[in-house]
Amino acid sequence: MQFLSDNAARVHPQVWAAMQAADAPDAPYDNDVLSQRLDAAFCELFGRDCAALWVGTGTAANCLSLTTLVEPHGGVICEENAHIERDECGAPGFYLHGAKLLLAKGEGAKLTPEAIEAVAAGITRGVHQVPAQAVSITQVSEFGLAYSPAELANIGTVTSRLGLGLHMDGARFGNAVAFLGCTPAEAAGPAKALSFGFTKNGAMDADAIVLFDPAQADLVRWRRKRAGHLRSKGRFMAAQLLAMLEGDLWLDLARKANAAAGLVAEGAAERLLYPHQSNELFVRLSAEERAVLRAEGFAFYDWDEAHVRIVAAWDTRPEHAEALGRAIARL
Amino acid sequence: MQFLSDNAARVHPQVWAAMQAADAPDAPYDNDVLSQRLDAAFCELFGRDCAALWVGTGTAANCLSLTTLVEPHGGVICEENAHIERDECGAPGFYLHGAKLLLAKGEGAKLTPEAIEAVAAGITRGVHQVPAQAVSITQVSEFGLAYSPAELANIGTVTSRLGLGLHMDGARFGNAVAFLGCTPAEAAGPAKALSFGFTKNGAMDADAIVLFDPAQADLVRWRRKRAGHLRSKGRFMAAQLLAMLEGDLWLDLARKANAAAGLVAEGAAERLLYPHQSNELFVRLSAEERAVLRAEGFAFYDWDEAHVRIVAAWDTRPEHAEALGRAIARL
Amino acid sequence: MQFLSDNAARVHPQVWAAMQAADAPDAPYDNDVLSQRLDAAFCELFGRDCAALWVGTGTAANCLSLTTLVEPHGGVICEENAHIERDECGAPGFYLHGAKLLLAKGEGAKLTPEAIEAVAAGITRGVHQVPAQAVSITQVSEFGLAYSPAELANIGTVTSRLGLGLHMDGARFGNAVAFLGCTPAEAAGPAKALSFGFTKNGAMDADAIVLFDPAQADLVRWRRKRAGHLRSKGRFMAAQLLAMLEGDLWLDLARKANAAAGLVAEGAAERLLYPHQSNELFVRLSAEERAVLRAEGFAFYDWDEAHVRIVAAWDTRPEHAEALGRAIARL
Amino acid sequence: MQFLSDNAARVHPQVWAAMQAADAPDAPYDNDVLSQRLDAAFCELFGRDCAALWVGTGTAANCLSLTTLVEPHGGVICEENAHIERDECGAPGFYLHGAKLLLAKGEGAKLTPEAIEAVAAGITRGVHQVPAQAVSITQVSEFGLAYSPAELANIGTVTSRLGLGLHMDGARFGNAVAFLGCTPAEAAGPAKALSFGFTKNGAMDADAIVLFDPAQADLVRWRRKRAGHLRSKGRFMAAQLLAMLEGDLWLDLARKANAAAGLVAEGAAERLLYPHQSNELFVRLSAEERAVLRAEGFAFYDWDEAHVRIVAAWDTRPEHAEALGRAIARL
Repeated sequence: MQFLSDNAARVHPQVWAAMQAADAPDAPYDNDVLSQRLDAAFCELFGRDCAALWVGTGTAANCLSLTTLVEPHGGVICEENAHIERDECGAPGFYLHGAKLLLAKGEGAKLTPEAIEAVAAGITRGVHQVPAQAVSITQVSEFGLAYSPAELANIGTVTSRLGLGLHMDGARFGNAVAFLGCTPAEAAGPAKALSFGFTKNGAMDADAIVLFDPAQADLVRWRRKRAGHLRSKGRFMAAQLLAMLEGDLWLDLARKANAAAGLVAEGAAERLLYPHQSNELFVRLSAEERAVLRAEGFAFYDWDEAHVRIVAAWDTRPEHAEALGRAIARL
Repeated sequence: MQFLSDNAARVHPQVWAAMQAADAPDAPYDNDVLSQRLDAAFCELFGRDCAALWVGTGTAANCLSLTTLVEPHGGVICEENAHIERDECGAPGFYLHGAKLLLAKGEGAKLTPEAIEAVAAGITRGVHQVPAQAVSITQVSEFGLAYSPAELANIGTVTSRLGLGLHMDGARFGNAVAFLGCTPAEAAGPAKALSFGFTKNGAMDADAIVLFDPAQADLVRWRRKRAGHLRSKGRFMAAQLLAMLEGDLWLDLARKANAAAGLVAEGAAERLLYPHQSNELFVRLSAEERAVLRAEGFAFYDWDEAHVRIVAAWDTRPEHAEALGRAIARL
Repeated sequence: MQFLSDNAARVHPQVWAAMQAADAPDAPYDNDVLSQRLDAAFCELFGRDCAALWVGTGTAANCLSLTTLVEPHGGVICEENAHIERDECGAPGFYLHGAKLLLAKGEGAKLTPEAIEAVAAGITRGVHQVPAQAVSITQVSEFGLAYSPAELANIGTVTSRLGLGLHMDGARFGNAVAFLGCTPAEAAGPAKALSFGFTKNGAMDADAIVLFDPAQADLVRWRRKRAGHLRSKGRFMAAQLLAMLEGDLWLDLARKANAAAGLVAEGAAERLLYPHQSNELFVRLSAEERAVLRAEGFAFYDWDEAHVRIVAAWDTRPEHAEALGRAIARL
Repeated sequence: MQFLSDNAARVHPQVWAAMQAADAPDAPYDNDVLSQRLDAAFCELFGRDCAALWVGTGTAANCLSLTTLVEPHGGVICEENAHIERDECGAPGFYLHGAKLLLAKGEGAKLTPEAIEAVAAGITRGVHQVPAQAVSITQVSEFGLAYSPAELANIGTVTSRLGLGLHMDGARFGNAVAFLGCTPAEAAGPAKALSFGFTKNGAMDADAIVLFDPAQADLVRWRRKRAGHLRSKGRFMAAQLLAMLEGDLWLDLARKANAAAGLVAEGAAERLLYPHQSNELFVRLSAEERAVLRAEGFAFYDWDEAHVRIVAAWDTRPEHAEALGRAIARL
């Protein structure tokens, strides 16, 4: 019973079907009919003007998004647990040509307006310091917590005042929308560029870069090609994204993953590091307790000495999640 | 009847089957069972020690390969029609941090030892010039021509003498092997790093970086992650490559593509810019002649004012190729 | 008798005097009184609004200037003999993060509107090619030829039409103004960024970046610091530039250098590769003839098998120049 | 009475004399007689094999030094107050192509073996994290503290064990040697690359990159040119360095600066944040106290709310230093 990572989840049958339907000759790169539909599909989803481009990984989505907001000599304020800081092997430094991540601390890996302002306030010495040009937040955060529309609005107030761009790493954006019960536009808030993840949520290898300033799309297209991310058979990428949007499959699958995590959370309520808001839980477990659970067939990730990370996916079976919740409760 | 690009070809059924068989939980990234098999599979194919990594595009394969051979202040000698020079939007400059392509001219876009030496001989002014550190050749060349094992050996003699690394862009490496009738190892010759393309030859979006100095594999792994090319569900990439190797499917499909081009070549023999050696033909056609063919339902690419490019793929129907050959002969 | 390079010339006594006068405590970096005067001094010289920053080498001046005009994925059209292409060890690739030089050919290393248009016309394949974003020309060219105000206007017409920025490498800008007999503003023409060289013309190690869009100055200030070119005792840089501007010393010295070259040119008239327009001459000389001149005590640079390069400087003695002219005439 | 920065200090008369003596034609760049002497001069100073190159700023010296130790995807462990982290506007990210600074905390901005090991121990997740490849320490530290030879040896033990290169930022290396009373070689310890600063210590704008692995010198030469730091009249740079080495002028001047700081420290003993070990002092002073001192004519830098930074230079007058010490004692 696997709770290691939503990266290990299967590809949804509707995604498979769409990919196979796309297996006919069409124009290469993103000139095919399906890729050409993306802008309209995401405009409809968000109820506002935007451009949408497929890309194969969340790291590429984040870094290409940030190229629209940050110059090589600039800085990006992010929480110290952010994926771009901890898990991307310096990819932002590569894509942004040495631009710097400026670290702030936040509860549950969420940035606050105050934390952003504190970083900005420390930049006072002119050309001797890297100037902040953007903020990157993660929806849901690395600890599985969602930013509410109100919290996002407050962050937007600060970034506007400071003249900073706002990027949202939405590797689990669907899980945020599912938890918040709001519209996608509300969950994106004032972000100018969104990495909208689908791979963890039922796609094979397709995420979307959503640019709420569509004038930036050409820049991202150049940079995507230059980074070797423009696939020759892009129709298979577009097919995945369109299948995920069709009938809000993405939202349905995110709800399923959240619900499965919720079943675990019920049994682990007193051990949760943070409240259950998505498909990720961080649960206080000793080494002995971990061994007991593993002996019962549960797989999960050792986060630190005190906690494990438990991740449910769209295809996590409810009975497995319940079983894990009960097993934790029994400890 | 489509002769525009092998990028537009379909995915082979055995590749589909292998991808679907891979759709079960496994370790993420390249820690899955299939990805772990790649080194052995390519070692067997080449009959020598090597490391093999999947990557999603030929541009990324080329650029990541070159990182093992060139420093940021160095240069790569290539033919002026090389894909890395003409078609990758400066990707080598991005991946190699400003390293420079040093252009040479060759007949049919093939480099010769003399052309390489001429470029190297022009670099005499110490730190004021970019030093050549590697050579990149394309097998088959941008004009569809193969380097014979003897030609490769001669190039290797020069690169060894000059202390240059040798990269081979094998976007159509299978077509070269099919034409040459030699082993893959012979077709790779003295190359230290090979971009072995499968996407144009029946895969969906998987090429291989083959490193004949396996000690460089870790470097490429870091750089692949840093470039956002380490997919979380890498098992689908490995599945494609293994399916293509299984029973030498890649060679069978390349032969089919070459043969289809051959059927066109029969009718176009007197109009060929270069001899038929792969799945690409460059055919002398006037604007009026092109219009005639297009009216008959043939699609192809306008190369320059005098020539069109005709590309067959693994799934080109022989009757279509014959029809095009006859149509050209009729002109 | 030295005609190798104007880099080997001495520092003018007025520059020495100004540097020594600057040797008193003042604010570090470019916060000193002298550095703060540069904008006004260059505005007066050019009779138009501009920003001026000191920098220690022509390579840095060129590359930092280009950062205001070109993005990392963009291209710079330049003549194939341009210093940025041939003599800066790939520095533009470093400073511009992999941006590409797009080479054109021109008579005497001068670009023409037609040559610029030809390069631009070849960029038709969207994201697969590096887009041209700027043009860089050299005043005087690598062969010592000046662009007239009319020629510059024609280039400006093309760059405006194509939406390209225009950079001028003015390592020998003073020599151009001295030859053209026009104002500095006329010799800069429609350039948006000018590398105005003083080091070859009597300074020790100070060139100026002149930005005719002063809003770009902050960008260059960040990039200059980031490239390690913001010296802590910047007052010595500013002192050099102000001394060179004082009483148009720069123009006086450039005239002297041009005149010295003219004395050589008189004797070499029938052997000149290009007409005498600055302080550089390219003279047809056989190996035997070179040996004769060297035996007479003249030092110069072997340009190619047929020509030598002869460079006069502000401190070249007229009698030496005359002697060289006569010696050539005698051959 | 100026205690703001040693950057504001004057150029020593012997440096001026050497520069003026160098004002005769010689080969350009670093091919002149003086530049060619540097390797031997620094070998003698350090009593071991090394290569030495001039460069115009400490930022460039640090970054070019690090290019010999770190790849673009690698990381450099440094203290969080290090100049490369706080004061160079991201220059390491530029020169190292996105390599990352990995921050550790140390008392008085000095790294310890334990701090280095702690950072290294946190890098466990393979390609998802930036691998540490080097350590950079500052001699004297940003708080003016010297590493003793024993401390350096302990750091060397750790870096050797972990396979990390060791860089030393010696912007105030002379002050360290003067305080430690050891040889330059002992003060450099196991460092592989040293930025040896002279500009703060009586030179105009010349620092040295000292490479204890001379085989790396060519790499630095290429990178120095590529970064626009190869000056055409390099003889003036070499002249400064040789003048500073002549008769150990550098050590004499560093001792003078340290002694002047010592005179201040006597009066400020109970207010010192750290013990007096160089020419820098951090002194606890309230806003009111600062105002009193400034009214008496003393200039210094506000470090934080509790402390000011006081820096003496080689030309600080002892009577001024005594006066400041007394003024602080009176508070």
